[in-house]
Amino acid sequence: MVGFTGGRLLASADETAAQPAPSEHSDIVSAFGAHQAGIATAQQRYATLVVADLTVSDAASFRRLMVDVSATVALITRGEEPPPSRMFPEGATTPTDFATGLSPSRLTVTVGVGAGVFELPGMTREAPRRLRPLPAFAGDHLDPRWGGGDMIFQICADDAQVVSAAMRALRARLPGYAVIRWTQSGFISVPEGGGTPRNMFGQKDGTSNPPTGSVEFADTVWTLPDEPEWFAGGSYLVFRKIRMKTANWDLTARDEQDAVIGRRRSDGAPLTGNEEFDEPDLEATGADGTTVIASDAHVRRVHGFSMLRRSYNYDYGFLTAMAGGSPDPLEHPENHPHAPGTADHHHGGHGKLDVGLLFCAYGNDPDSQFIAAQQRMAEQDRLNAFIQHTGSAIFAILPGFGKDGYLGDTLV
Amino acid sequence: MVGFTGGRLLASADETAAQPAPSEHSDIVSAFGAHQAGIATAQQRYATLVVADLTVSDAASFRRLMVDVSATVALITRGEEPPPSRMFPEGATTPTDFATGLSPSRLTVTVGVGAGVFELPGMTREAPRRLRPLPAFAGDHLDPRWGGGDMIFQICADDAQVVSAAMRALRARLPGYAVIRWTQSGFISVPEGGGTPRNMFGQKDGTSNPPTGSVEFADTVWTLPDEPEWFAGGSYLVFRKIRMKTANWDLTARDEQDAVIGRRRSDGAPLTGNEEFDEPDLEATGADGTTVIASDAHVRRVHGFSMLRRSYNYDYGFLTAMAGGSPDPLEHPENHPHAPGTADHHHGGHGKLDVGLLFCAYGNDPDSQFIAAQQRMAEQDRLNAFIQHTGSAIFAILPGFGKDGYLGDTLV
Repeated sequence: MVGFTGGRLLASADETAAQPAPSEHSDIVSAFGAHQAGIATAQQRYATLVVADLTVSDAASFRRLMVDVSATVALITRGEEPPPSRMFPEGATTPTDFATGLSPSRLTVTVGVGAGVFELPGMTREAPRRLRPLPAFAGDHLDPRWGGGDMIFQICADDAQVVSAAMRALRARLPGYAVIRWTQSGFISVPEGGGTPRNMFGQKDGTSNPPTGSVEFADTVWTLPDEPEWFAGGSYLVFRKIRMKTANWDLTARDEQDAVIGRRRSDGAPLTGNEEFDEPDLEATGADGTTVIASDAHVRRVHGFSMLRRSYNYDYGFLTAMAGGSPDPLEHPENHPHAPGTADHHHGGHGKLDVGLLFCAYGNDPDSQFIAAQQRMAEQDRLNAFIQHTGSAIFAILPGFGKDGYLGDTLV
Repeated sequence: MVGFTGGRLLASADETAAQPAPSEHSDIVSAFGAHQAGIATAQQRYATLVVADLTVSDAASFRRLMVDVSATVALITRGEEPPPSRMFPEGATTPTDFATGLSPSRLTVTVGVGAGVFELPGMTREAPRRLRPLPAFAGDHLDPRWGGGDMIFQICADDAQVVSAAMRALRARLPGYAVIRWTQSGFISVPEGGGTPRNMFGQKDGTSNPPTGSVEFADTVWTLPDEPEWFAGGSYLVFRKIRMKTANWDLTARDEQDAVIGRRRSDGAPLTGNEEFDEPDLEATGADGTTVIASDAHVRRVHGFSMLRRSYNYDYGFLTAMAGGSPDPLEHPENHPHAPGTADHHHGGHGKLDVGLLFCAYGNDPDSQFIAAQQRMAEQDRLNAFIQHTGSAIFAILPGFGKDGYLGDTLV
């Protein structure tokens, strides 16, 4: 464990030093540091979120899992084999073999815990103060298939097969300790020449993120001083699976799309500005005397709430719809403008397309950050007509760990 | 349409010239040529297969769809906007907008038709001679959710978001003509320094493919001379969704894995050879007098069947299992070595992981190529213990088209 014992982090030269040290290979992100990798790390192109429910009966078993997971994370993020285990004894093949020949591709594994962990017999530390179930929001279409859970593994890398290999390596540590509850996988594409990635509505997504290494970043993301001491250097992660009604969006005129968001799709600038990073002017009025950025425009509704958005696009095509039982909460008649064809009764309509955003927001105060923003948005936001929140979870992201420690070594 | 009117293609300088012309940008693959792009094209990193069922009532409507699809393919593969349509009139946004700023990333769209197309009223051309339903194979675990269909769009690119954008652009052409039946998405990762990609068992996949541009390639892939004249320059595509029981595989010792395949996982060489591209020696015997490559080793069972394998790995995590109705044909008790935990009853076991291969084989004679190989394999193959075929379809891949033509212009 690095020499970090709690208290509020100051964003400064010290803060920069507390980031995971850059390693000799640019495709390796060190797993070690005061904070876990995969948060301040420049966003990788692919991610799988793996959420598990614990099956252990006490804190000591949970500790064994965390020690084992940490050793695995430390090795696989360097492109090395995971340690031998009951399931994979010395000399057996290991799940990462199938990524042989691939670079580590900036693999990171970021681990968080849900409220259930603090109910384990033998757990003596108190839960993070803000680790409470998210409230219900107006308009939620939550599907119990992809929500909740005791632990999250956010696995990110610049190569999809490396993410897949890491997922299998981690899954191999779970038997006897936990069972996978849900998984989600996504991607982002970085424009030629760099810049903010676009979501599946074509809008730049992440424009208002605090800059990495800034005071604002630290003040937004890392734990507040009133949190339990063991949690210092951690964060909270709010996950929402947000289905985007792409057919409805695509049929909406461009200027109306821009009005819905309050930004121009073309360059990401607010309707009152010239460039992507210009501050929106919420007071500016147009020739007709009304505000340029409408009262229910998305950018106005969520203005002033700081969080680190580290989201991924997803495109499951018809996969989840095909695999779906009944009833399908994603199925909406308004997405079926066309008469059913001969084949429609068995696989059918256009509402089956499951495309959207795996919204991931890091922050140290979900109440005043994600929850407050989402309440404002749920209340009134022109964007609501085009999206549905179908998955939801909140986790406390553990502090970082050091070469001689393990994830959660201040906790258990 | 290029000047190509039928007859068997000769692999020669002429054949090379008949390949889609390299364009000025290395990230653009021309859609035009005697053959469709996306077959001889060096395999891109991401693919989505979109299969649709027609809802048109006659060949003339099908022709309109093909004209529209072709215009769309020609434009989006150059990174340009799709043409205006009823669904997306001039000035409306278009589905590719969300890929703004991304390169075309070697996008290709390869279109094939199923047997249903030839039953359309007004269709005068005869069906390809070998376009027959695949026979049932011993061991099949086919799931009706991902099989069959009237049309396939194989969408490939080096960027996942570009594939997704192309899928939406094509889907926008379907209303009134077709409905999507199933989709599948996959990836391959190319090792540092190049070479054959690995599948989810860690084995190199595609070693025995005929080299692009060779006589063997042309003799294997492009239509035989006894096919209907309109079909010249086309091919057949056999799709199989092959679930790989990774937990069982991972628990198998390395030397046994190598024996199952008949090749070494490490370098892909046959057990009788030194290098990946050495020909397997099926007669060679070891010290104990038995053949080095076992009688039921995979490489022996499928030896001598030539086809162009252009497969993609897939990793759906627990996605399809979570979304699954009942009964789940993928669920097998032998994959549940661990006692169910507290959460197991609702999401549970390790058999839920849906990982494997989107097997895509191009060839001009499915009977003597895929079907013969699969019959040999179904009969006896040590690999069968580790895989399940869960999806199946066959399509006739249309000949290529030219700047003034459209996909299927020799057909309808």
